[in-house]
Amino acid sequence: MVKELSEALARGLASSARTKPLGRRRFLSGTAAGGAALAAGALAPRSGLAQQAGQSNLPPNTPAWTTRQGTPIVTPPYGLPSKYEKDVVRRPTNLTPTDISSWSFTPLQDLHGIITPNGLFFERHHGGVPDIPPDQHRLMIHGLVDRPLIFTMDELMRFPSVSRIYYLECSGNTLTQWKPTKETVQGSHGLVSCVEWTGVPLATLLQEVGVKPAAKWILAEGADAAAMTRSIPIEKAWDDALIAYGQNGEALRPEQGYPVRLLLPGYEGNMSIKWLRRLELGEQPWYTREETSKYTDLMPDGRARKFSFIMEAKSVITGPSSTDTLRGPGFYEVSGIAWTGHGRIIRVDVSTDGGDNWQQAELQEPVLPKALTRFRFGWRWDGSPALLQSRAIDETGYVQPTHDQLVQARGTNSVYHYNAIYTWQITPNGEITNVHV
Amino acid sequence: MVKELSEALARGLASSARTKPLGRRRFLSGTAAGGAALAAGALAPRSGLAQQAGQSNLPPNTPAWTTRQGTPIVTPPYGLPSKYEKDVVRRPTNLTPTDISSWSFTPLQDLHGIITPNGLFFERHHGGVPDIPPDQHRLMIHGLVDRPLIFTMDELMRFPSVSRIYYLECSGNTLTQWKPTKETVQGSHGLVSCVEWTGVPLATLLQEVGVKPAAKWILAEGADAAAMTRSIPIEKAWDDALIAYGQNGEALRPEQGYPVRLLLPGYEGNMSIKWLRRLELGEQPWYTREETSKYTDLMPDGRARKFSFIMEAKSVITGPSSTDTLRGPGFYEVSGIAWTGHGRIIRVDVSTDGGDNWQQAELQEPVLPKALTRFRFGWRWDGSPALLQSRAIDETGYVQPTHDQLVQARGTNSVYHYNAIYTWQITPNGEITNVHV
Repeated sequence: MVKELSEALARGLASSARTKPLGRRRFLSGTAAGGAALAAGALAPRSGLAQQAGQSNLPPNTPAWTTRQGTPIVTPPYGLPSKYEKDVVRRPTNLTPTDISSWSFTPLQDLHGIITPNGLFFERHHGGVPDIPPDQHRLMIHGLVDRPLIFTMDELMRFPSVSRIYYLECSGNTLTQWKPTKETVQGSHGLVSCVEWTGVPLATLLQEVGVKPAAKWILAEGADAAAMTRSIPIEKAWDDALIAYGQNGEALRPEQGYPVRLLLPGYEGNMSIKWLRRLELGEQPWYTREETSKYTDLMPDGRARKFSFIMEAKSVITGPSSTDTLRGPGFYEVSGIAWTGHGRIIRVDVSTDGGDNWQQAELQEPVLPKALTRFRFGWRWDGSPALLQSRAIDETGYVQPTHDQLVQARGTNSVYHYNAIYTWQITPNGEITNVHV
Repeated sequence: MVKELSEALARGLASSARTKPLGRRRFLSGTAAGGAALAAGALAPRSGLAQQAGQSNLPPNTPAWTTRQGTPIVTPPYGLPSKYEKDVVRRPTNLTPTDISSWSFTPLQDLHGIITPNGLFFERHHGGVPDIPPDQHRLMIHGLVDRPLIFTMDELMRFPSVSRIYYLECSGNTLTQWKPTKETVQGSHGLVSCVEWTGVPLATLLQEVGVKPAAKWILAEGADAAAMTRSIPIEKAWDDALIAYGQNGEALRPEQGYPVRLLLPGYEGNMSIKWLRRLELGEQPWYTREETSKYTDLMPDGRARKFSFIMEAKSVITGPSSTDTLRGPGFYEVSGIAWTGHGRIIRVDVSTDGGDNWQQAELQEPVLPKALTRFRFGWRWDGSPALLQSRAIDETGYVQPTHDQLVQARGTNSVYHYNAIYTWQITPNGEITNVHV
């Protein structure tokens, strides 16, 4: 059904609809309006009275599901999505030779808001998901400390806790986009998710063991078969690092590090070591495999950047995107997500002409540091070719670069940390594909 | 393992740990400290290098799950909790004669933070959960409007959307507590949950259909077998009512109204009509079954309160609670949730002596209007009998009442809207039960 929109009305509405009635001003206009005009008896009002299935006085057109009792309570006791949402799932990559060390993507094109449901949080494992009985798991903290200690899960959970909404992004997210590929936004950007984490500040545990003055780095090691290891600067531990055991209220999911993980807000995802079993304090970084042969960015001259921990500001339009087809001219809400490892997103701009002109998008409150920020922009498509883009600006003043600016700054030897402005090309027949402009 | 705590240290730490190192100040003290002292080789450091399963040079005590590859990516493609969390589920009541019109409770004692994972959101249905194909569902808006309209789901999802974190509470939550019962906090308070909802402001749709000046009330009707119906004052529609189709990022769960529900923040849960099929605008409330024979509160004189929409300020300590046993004197984090239908929680106080003395708890940021607010309070238990309580204060200045104050104000003819201060009695052997004091 084709809908027409007066953008001026849409803009007025967006700012005032929640506070006062606008009388006869309409959001959508035109003959087809925002829905079908009502035919007499079309939907069978039931006069506010419940009627039992099988009674003969049901109005015509009563939906079948209203005429019979539904499914009972707690079936199942842990709830699942509707069967009609069966295609909204994580999807694997075809770029890895094994599904043990591989990744799967969050279906960003199907999601709303800023919270990722736990069942759709992206995955990146290096030796598969270990099966760890929580009562047998231990976390050891040792090295340059006064009192090396081993903690059980029960002990960790007795410390004062905090809960924070943080995004987590794989440093390899969008690595396929050094050249444009015809992918869904799930395939291009789906290695980012955002949940409410709960855990103990790592700073609390460091106070418990007592840090020797010479300690400048922490080695974090996972209990998975890869024994995934990274070196963490101790400043991050004193800042906002968490020893996390909760995820959107419940226990961490197995693929997120159950029973406990490190969580380094804004840093490369692989540094937030899952299934955390060991923290060793030392004077220097350890230069482990995962921070030398992997997860290192080559500069244009072929030398490696010595550590690139923080994920830079980035954004992407999740809808409309390549899984949608625009059904003719009219109003479309352009919506997406923005994030930065440097703190808060302060602005997101949207362009519909490939970056020649920019307009400010609306940011969904609350805008939280190192969390996804949802942006929205009301757009009236006139049916002509369009190039949709978003660009994020963070609290440091950093502006998400164009692809050309990114290549100019970093060359093309890099694999990780691709954060360029992303472009959706829309053809007059409403088809959408990603391009470089 | 018994732990000792200097509360003064704990308080200093809670406010400063995330911003600067505290050197040798320790959070937990005493011989057993915060974990086991480290025996030589106790946890087999692996020197930061990944080792393959089956290699003979594995250090002693390497956990079994580190010696073999784990589960591959996307098994299953929609993720599930760990098998070790199988008891963290919704639980039904035994108070209803049928599980079609019944409820199930959120396991609050096991949850952290403010977000409820979708699989643990409480249930309350009046005719079971209908199975509604979203492409066949319609929402009709008619009555005192200029242009009665019928919307498909695709049409609803084209309107400008918003996402907001709101709690939802059944008006019958805690109804068993007019007399103390030996229940878990899941059983007493588990009919409240909190998620990030996404949808269209109802105000937007009202502008679309055009509201006639005489319209003062809206009848909302569900497509379930109960055709659940309630009358809503139109002011709520212009304020913050949502036509919600998203829940923690993904589609509504079937038991939460898939594909679309009304969401009236801060109002009795039953008014947020699920499986919403019809909104009729009129001059007067309809006095449906669900707002007359049910969901009405009797006053001391036997007359009914004419509508009690807003859920008043309330709080409960979720841990420690009756599923825990305190393992001896020492530090315990007292944590719980507070909420109010009138906006923001501004303060939560905690008492450990049954209300003679109160101390202010820490509120977890962000504190959002009509959302759960997580509070925390560091407590050193000396092993003597204790009476743990929390009381919520909201932005209107309303203070959560004691049980006696509630009874004095409302009498004992009421069933719904029980929001009194809740008491956990702790015996010297660490057992916890709820009592009235």
